[in-house]
Amino acid sequence: MNKMFLAINQTNISDAPRFYHRGIMLDSSRHFIPIPLLKKHLDTMMYNKMNVFHWHLVDDQSFPLESKTYPNLHKKGAYSENHVYNHEEIKELIEFARIRGIRIIPELDTPGHTYSWGLGYPELITICWKDGKPFQAIYNVQGQREILNPIQNLTYDFVSNLIAELKGLFSDPFIHLGMDEVYYSCWESNPNISQFMLLNSLNSTKDLEQYYMSRVLTSANKLGYKVTVWQDVWDNKVEVFNDTILQIWKSEEDWRGYMQNATQDGYNVVLSSPWYLNYIKYGSDWYEFYKVEPTDFEGTEEQKKRIVGGEACMWSEFVDGANSISRLWPRASAVAERLWSSIDLNDVEEAKFRLDEHRCRLLRIILTYENFQGFNKIKSIRIIKIYFANLKQKLKQRALA
Amino acid sequence: MNKMFLAINQTNISDAPRFYHRGIMLDSSRHFIPIPLLKKHLDTMMYNKMNVFHWHLVDDQSFPLESKTYPNLHKKGAYSENHVYNHEEIKELIEFARIRGIRIIPELDTPGHTYSWGLGYPELITICWKDGKPFQAIYNVQGQREILNPIQNLTYDFVSNLIAELKGLFSDPFIHLGMDEVYYSCWESNPNISQFMLLNSLNSTKDLEQYYMSRVLTSANKLGYKVTVWQDVWDNKVEVFNDTILQIWKSEEDWRGYMQNATQDGYNVVLSSPWYLNYIKYGSDWYEFYKVEPTDFEGTEEQKKRIVGGEACMWSEFVDGANSISRLWPRASAVAERLWSSIDLNDVEEAKFRLDEHRCRLLRIILTYENFQGFNKIKSIRIIKIYFANLKQKLKQRALA
Repeated sequence: MNKMFLAINQTNISDAPRFYHRGIMLDSSRHFIPIPLLKKHLDTMMYNKMNVFHWHLVDDQSFPLESKTYPNLHKKGAYSENHVYNHEEIKELIEFARIRGIRIIPELDTPGHTYSWGLGYPELITICWKDGKPFQAIYNVQGQREILNPIQNLTYDFVSNLIAELKGLFSDPFIHLGMDEVYYSCWESNPNISQFMLLNSLNSTKDLEQYYMSRVLTSANKLGYKVTVWQDVWDNKVEVFNDTILQIWKSEEDWRGYMQNATQDGYNVVLSSPWYLNYIKYGSDWYEFYKVEPTDFEGTEEQKKRIVGGEACMWSEFVDGANSISRLWPRASAVAERLWSSIDLNDVEEAKFRLDEHRCRLLRIILTYENFQGFNKIKSIRIIKIYFANLKQKLKQRALA
Repeated sequence: MNKMFLAINQTNISDAPRFYHRGIMLDSSRHFIPIPLLKKHLDTMMYNKMNVFHWHLVDDQSFPLESKTYPNLHKKGAYSENHVYNHEEIKELIEFARIRGIRIIPELDTPGHTYSWGLGYPELITICWKDGKPFQAIYNVQGQREILNPIQNLTYDFVSNLIAELKGLFSDPFIHLGMDEVYYSCWESNPNISQFMLLNSLNSTKDLEQYYMSRVLTSANKLGYKVTVWQDVWDNKVEVFNDTILQIWKSEEDWRGYMQNATQDGYNVVLSSPWYLNYIKYGSDWYEFYKVEPTDFEGTEEQKKRIVGGEACMWSEFVDGANSISRLWPRASAVAERLWSSIDLNDVEEAKFRLDEHRCRLLRIILTYENFQGFNKIKSIRIIKIYFANLKQKLKQRALA
């Protein structure tokens, strides 16, 4: 080889993703995840050909998103002034993601999961009643103040203005509006809500939920947003625009039924149920993530086409800056391959070598990904030998055929 | 306060450990743990008042310990030349530990767990037979070459010289000689061993194990070493010097029976069974480690005094540089408090605040310890309020009493 030139083979790479939505959901409310770590996640997503960062920004536990419209949201709702993402940081992060081929979809989860909103704006929150007294927690179901009050224009104006602020800040055509786990008990306990329902011919709390969601979804729609929501909206038979994407998250075992019914009802879906990577156990659990086949449910070809993709979710009850990277990666690489590669690339015994090599690649770029297979030199060498022996055999057979 | 002086209260601290052996066992064979990370562990041990680093240096998977006597041990047995602890590094580490009040006890595990020894010195290893043929693996029990050959002087000289090398390198009066999981099937399969047993009136493989162990323990004793071994030696009714310490590691559920019987037989014991921290599950598992009471078994006061302490073990099948620190700490802090503090300091509901605060302290010294309680601001504040309300109540009652 000439010292001045590097000769490379001419190579044609033919590759394309199977699903166009290949996502990671990170929760920055239960624990704050600093911007430098979010960038590490985005870098790693790029190296795993993932293209959607679903950012579960706010929740009951904290409101780390700077709001210029309602500054008490972050001033009172964040863990501290050091636990806030300001607009400059967010804009820079969006650009950081963009040049890596990653969309950022922000989530504004309502009407439940809003305890932290009430710290700055208590007037937004439904007052729960019990035994004829206001301001009561209904334990085992929900805390004292964690669901928006759906019977006042104040709430709708507030949510709408906040969606507008996000529309100006984030660049993606989609917003995630949450709408999961809307527990009715607090609404049912409140006499003003009962009266409102009576006056407005809302016959059940489900109708009230429908009323809330219609107004918020219409606001988002008017602002030019397309919407994703958690599956609960559809579970509760609330009517939504038919371009709304449902994120299927319930039941690690029975997600197939949800996929079947939601696509039958004509909705596009993102699958997450089998990919809650915050749940851990001893040993290699990536096999289970890898073996999931999103189209593995009863349904027509038309229905299968409604699967836009999937997301690996990392809820942060037990995750923060200390272990956010090492707990998610490289386990999420198994999900990444499932969402990118063709349906027949599904042999765990072959995948483990690819993924192990991939971990080495990731480690080389100075990130910390846990050893998720328990591989060690001896075992690896033995297994790799078997692998190549089998491969040789296969190629031989093909040559003879 | 005067600007030039810092006034502090005169304070008398009266504190002493309950057990004198408060250890962490790290496994550097299944995966290599770089020296800088070992130092982080030692630092963290100091901040947790732990004083014994039990270093499981070598095992089947690799031999990362430099040997000047038998250099092919690390040259052939380590994962690579970059995965070796050389003598200079080890000496520096011993001093690093010493000034932090920590002893380092090296472990040389024989006669099982020695596959990596055979890579450089195959003549040491027992050849397993099957169906009249040598060099056969006996799957589900053990690999083809992973237990020392106990019928040749070569083996005993080798082990003895290696113990001597460690004696010159490490400064602690104790060595750990392993001796766990001595599976008999390979020895039983080998016709030369059968013949040897016949000639030497060894009636069972247990007798052969006894023969091996007596010779090795005698060597260590002659070299001036005191010895710790895993409980298997005693399980198999092998006689050992009565100053040998047994490390109880079997059965997370029934360790009490082992403690009872081993102390009844007059042995000093180190407890590890309930503290295998490599096993993980979702959520807070430190409660279980914390609630363990080492003296909680049937036995006399004399027996209870034979508990020298305990060790939290981190076997490294799924742990390496990427997650070694965050997986062990601060979960091991629960074990540290159990081994240091008095028997009646055992209220989990109180401990969780101390341990949470302790995690913050550890984080401040720039280490990465996972959030092991799922604490977040809201919950913490609420719980802390309840805690202080209860405390106030208690103090009031005491004042009145």
